[in-house]
Amino acid sequence: MISEAMEDADRVLVDLGNRSYDILIGDRLVDRAGKEIAERFPGARAAIVSDETVASLYLEQLRNSLASAGVDSAAIIMPPGEKTKSFEHLMTVVDEILAARLERRDIVIALGGGVIGDLTGFAAGVVRRGMHFVQIPTTLLAQVDSSVGGKTGINSARGKNLIGVFHQPALVLADTSVLDTLSAREFRAGYAETAKYGLIDQPEFFAWLEGNWKDVFAGGEARRRAIATSCRAKAAVVAADERESGARALLNLGHTFGHALEAAVGYDSSRLVHGEGVAIGMVLAHQFSVRLNLASVDDARRVEAHLADVGLPTRLSDIPGDLPPPDRLLEHIAQDKKVERGRLTFILTKGVGQSFVAKDVPASEVELFLKEKYGQ
Amino acid sequence: MISEAMEDADRVLVDLGNRSYDILIGDRLVDRAGKEIAERFPGARAAIVSDETVASLYLEQLRNSLASAGVDSAAIIMPPGEKTKSFEHLMTVVDEILAARLERRDIVIALGGGVIGDLTGFAAGVVRRGMHFVQIPTTLLAQVDSSVGGKTGINSARGKNLIGVFHQPALVLADTSVLDTLSAREFRAGYAETAKYGLIDQPEFFAWLEGNWKDVFAGGEARRRAIATSCRAKAAVVAADERESGARALLNLGHTFGHALEAAVGYDSSRLVHGEGVAIGMVLAHQFSVRLNLASVDDARRVEAHLADVGLPTRLSDIPGDLPPPDRLLEHIAQDKKVERGRLTFILTKGVGQSFVAKDVPASEVELFLKEKYGQ
Repeated sequence: MISEAMEDADRVLVDLGNRSYDILIGDRLVDRAGKEIAERFPGARAAIVSDETVASLYLEQLRNSLASAGVDSAAIIMPPGEKTKSFEHLMTVVDEILAARLERRDIVIALGGGVIGDLTGFAAGVVRRGMHFVQIPTTLLAQVDSSVGGKTGINSARGKNLIGVFHQPALVLADTSVLDTLSAREFRAGYAETAKYGLIDQPEFFAWLEGNWKDVFAGGEARRRAIATSCRAKAAVVAADERESGARALLNLGHTFGHALEAAVGYDSSRLVHGEGVAIGMVLAHQFSVRLNLASVDDARRVEAHLADVGLPTRLSDIPGDLPPPDRLLEHIAQDKKVERGRLTFILTKGVGQSFVAKDVPASEVELFLKEKYGQ
Repeated sequence: MISEAMEDADRVLVDLGNRSYDILIGDRLVDRAGKEIAERFPGARAAIVSDETVASLYLEQLRNSLASAGVDSAAIIMPPGEKTKSFEHLMTVVDEILAARLERRDIVIALGGGVIGDLTGFAAGVVRRGMHFVQIPTTLLAQVDSSVGGKTGINSARGKNLIGVFHQPALVLADTSVLDTLSAREFRAGYAETAKYGLIDQPEFFAWLEGNWKDVFAGGEARRRAIATSCRAKAAVVAADERESGARALLNLGHTFGHALEAAVGYDSSRLVHGEGVAIGMVLAHQFSVRLNLASVDDARRVEAHLADVGLPTRLSDIPGDLPPPDRLLEHIAQDKKVERGRLTFILTKGVGQSFVAKDVPASEVELFLKEKYGQ
């Protein structure tokens, strides 16, 4: 991947041959969206998919930007929240894209967080067997993670993201100024994914975050740097392993536990949002690695301390309400898609920035570990 | 593509790099399915998707074949008919695949005609963002056309096949003996697609069919030759243009009119099945080409005569019941996905075996032509 400074945006190229695309990271990119899109898709029309919350803040701004660049647009507005990642809402979005009479060379734009991006990308991937897709992620989590890499999908009663397609965007516009309207809780949730890149294989980035996280939260240059670093890391992994057959699995650090916890609370975002599940999951992955004699207690404590510092939950007991028993949690883990022929696959670690894929983790070890954690 | 004789099956390779796959064509391949699958996917489990009609004939035979090769299988049975290509049935199939706890390396098998193949391929393409997929087509139409090439999908109220993905099978088993249980009407419908390959660019194959079609209908060597020739033709086009950006569009000869007619009768298969729509559509495409001074009247008459000989419908008036007015039919054509920026794309022809893609056909010409046809 390549990264270079533009007038007022960083540019990261996701290198996928003839399906390569740009991620632009900078202030006020929503206002520049029309220009960037019209340059890349001359003559195209657009359908914008957003949710009620984001639409009330940025839809008019985006449509004005598109209109002034000559791009005609239709808007499709969904309810906010994880429950929108359902078959029912997929049907609605697909039907409204068809109702807008978009043709194969027109574009579908996701304006929103991870839920809108995942749902919209899936819809764009299946209408006419694949339409051009532009991501305008409006949460930190979507900017540093879900908007890049082409994973799209919806949830099933049997698990999160079990249904979807790989459908790469043709452009990602990460407008760092829209993050000013995020709640502190949502910003922190996205920060968990940012910290993840440090924990996977960039110890120096994790150390930088430990020293500068308050500036990242405050906005400006440190925020842009954290987002661009995250996007570069993700772009490199995606370019190396688009379909998650190998190295891309590292991006799931904290996610096996995290997804199971999200399922365990019934995807109730008042109790746990995705990034919070990942934060607890990353701490658990480090503690589990300690238990398996892979990592040091000090490293696990350091990870927990930093995530707790920024205000993220780090323990099972930080989740409000009762959790189902450990064996039920293990069932959620077993149904998670990162299972191959009954063996449990986990991302484990030898310490900060030294994560690796472990394919033969015995379920019994996981269960013992979880029972221990429930006791604390 | 490569074609070679096996002990008792032809083999056609669809050359798509590391996603290449075999089409085997021969008698009693359902009985050999277990062996062929176990060799290619050691240790995998399977979900078989079929419809009530086909399942009553071949499901037990297939499951026995799988079981004797050590492949554990679950069965998912859909109602027969085009209406099964719906979001509702997609949801059911996806959910039952997940309920069977298949993992990413397991396989989903379509046992049935085009409807089951299209629906199952779509489901296999979206469960866990893509599972292995095996086609066991049980109609002539599916064997010579829909089972090869990776196009999957469902219908929308706004048009046929508007929702789907490209998801290549990993193996296609075309058992020529199962065609003995097809109704004459269904066999004829599939024959329309067989004749299409001659009309696209193989005039000698069309001439062979004119002389040998009764043997093709009777079974045995002529049938196998017709199917293998069709599969080779389709495999070559798919290998050259997997995503239908160019040459693959030729496979739509007769389909733009045909799809519009299917939509016009509300996908009522008692009035018109897909292959019948294609037969009428191919005749119309030749007649329209005559009107545009591209092809000779003799060629158009020759095509109509052969398709009428085998018992296929060739005129609008062959469709039982009333059709909507020509402008409504034109609307169906405009909503068809082979429209680019408002221009109508048609497959036209200079004569038998000389088809080509025309991208700028004026809608007004099509409407005049249709009005003329309605008058006949």
